[in-house]
Amino acid sequence: MGKLLVLGCVAIDTVRTPFGEATEVLGGSATYFSTAASFFTDVDLIAVVGEDFPEEHVEFLRRRKIDLTGLERRKGKTFRWQGEYTDQLNDAHTLDTQLNVLETFRPTIPDHYRSPDMLFLGNIDPELQMDVLNQVKRPNVVACDTMNFWINGKRDALWNLLKKIDVLIINDGEARALGQETNLVKVAKDVLARGPKRFIVKRGEYGVLMFTDQHVFGATAFPLETVKDPTGAGDTFAGGFMGCLSATRDFSEAGFRRAIIFGSVMASFTVEAFSLDRLRELDYKDVESRFRAFKRLTHFEDLS
Amino acid sequence: MGKLLVLGCVAIDTVRTPFGEATEVLGGSATYFSTAASFFTDVDLIAVVGEDFPEEHVEFLRRRKIDLTGLERRKGKTFRWQGEYTDQLNDAHTLDTQLNVLETFRPTIPDHYRSPDMLFLGNIDPELQMDVLNQVKRPNVVACDTMNFWINGKRDALWNLLKKIDVLIINDGEARALGQETNLVKVAKDVLARGPKRFIVKRGEYGVLMFTDQHVFGATAFPLETVKDPTGAGDTFAGGFMGCLSATRDFSEAGFRRAIIFGSVMASFTVEAFSLDRLRELDYKDVESRFRAFKRLTHFEDLS
Repeated sequence: MGKLLVLGCVAIDTVRTPFGEATEVLGGSATYFSTAASFFTDVDLIAVVGEDFPEEHVEFLRRRKIDLTGLERRKGKTFRWQGEYTDQLNDAHTLDTQLNVLETFRPTIPDHYRSPDMLFLGNIDPELQMDVLNQVKRPNVVACDTMNFWINGKRDALWNLLKKIDVLIINDGEARALGQETNLVKVAKDVLARGPKRFIVKRGEYGVLMFTDQHVFGATAFPLETVKDPTGAGDTFAGGFMGCLSATRDFSEAGFRRAIIFGSVMASFTVEAFSLDRLRELDYKDVESRFRAFKRLTHFEDLS
Repeated sequence: MGKLLVLGCVAIDTVRTPFGEATEVLGGSATYFSTAASFFTDVDLIAVVGEDFPEEHVEFLRRRKIDLTGLERRKGKTFRWQGEYTDQLNDAHTLDTQLNVLETFRPTIPDHYRSPDMLFLGNIDPELQMDVLNQVKRPNVVACDTMNFWINGKRDALWNLLKKIDVLIINDGEARALGQETNLVKVAKDVLARGPKRFIVKRGEYGVLMFTDQHVFGATAFPLETVKDPTGAGDTFAGGFMGCLSATRDFSEAGFRRAIIFGSVMASFTVEAFSLDRLRELDYKDVESRFRAFKRLTHFEDLS
């Protein structure tokens, strides 16, 4: 088992969905990612919080055995996001974003973080992502996420970063914006020609597609009777995915497919409750049990 | 192999998509359904056309070995539908509908159609669907489709029909309208409690879900580089699905899952060209080959 390093944000979220509201709760891409990954592997976290960040959240991450040496605590307030989901829960409407300490965040990497086996560059400025990548010994697998704000605003920096990474993990809307093309198979060809060896497209309640030069893998999402809050589902997916890869170090097509399913499993739990509440009560037996349920969900006999 | 009876409409379509336009071409739910099913089994067709219906289309259906005794030719014009797809091709915008001979259509069933092994009641007035069901010896499997127009306008007639059928096949928007609920798992529970033993939800480019009391099957759709016209995809799916069941007569869960994949295979071909053009050039080897591609697309190893 190698070490998994994640760069991202830790946040205080306020979220409203048709099924309730959560005010000033734990959130942030790196929080969801590292918590999900911690079910599989050792995680080193790089992020920043403000003076107001509740100690109980630090304690929660510590209990998940996440290395918090790289969790910087700075003067000022923690990054805050406020959002709302309506109807079918597919689209978050951002009501308010307060960058706070994130605004001037320049990641510094503790010495014992500098030889990670795997690296996940969460959604931040692609120049910061590149900066972190340049500060570590080249990991076996580098994956990154991004968002439309950077796709539209820092396109060149993003293309430069893509030349240096192994796996791009974004959602379908971002994929279409990145490729300036609605057909995802065409977008995948474009992305794969620019550097990444794998391109993973998250499609919310519909599941995930993974493209390589030679294969396409389609994983449907788990149909859930209770979906309370989709916040963090994508980051949880990435955490389960990279966590599984880090644990197995199986970088074959079959190994990547297994990781996709474990990522989907973790995401399917996250959306069942607000914030990270569902992950708090979970143990690895639940994870394996839902993996097997995914197999039953999708299995069909091949032609003889 | 049993006989498969289909009730539905045969139409002349005019369709515009971002990839072109097709004017006054062959269309209609029963046309797509029976053509797809004809790759697997013998099909008896019940539908109506007008005096203007081109002989070449009749000839095409005849070459597919579809029994056309029940294809009534009446005074007046053939049913016409005009539609447009934009952007991601998920939603058809109806520009014009001319019912023509469909307006006064009362299906009469030729004697040699009256003991079908399987019956598909395509999307028409649920009272006509019930009428046809009452006129035949109870088939082994009865499936039906419907649309929001009947869900909203003839809800009671539809619930009555559902008591008598085995499989309901509708799309996700229709499912949510029928169940008056956005969560599909909850809609499925409601539908299954009202009669049907299986509930199949078509989700366009995202694939299909099949619910029973005991199982859920999730099949992702085949990612295609060329999608020209989604018209008829749902009916083609139903045709491949029922055609496969009719050919295998395997009514186990595994048999139904295989049928779902064959339906998905047929639909994946249909959308690659306008009208039924892709199905015209297809042979069964192509169908089997894409079935195997579906297996490669979705396969992952279970936990040991």
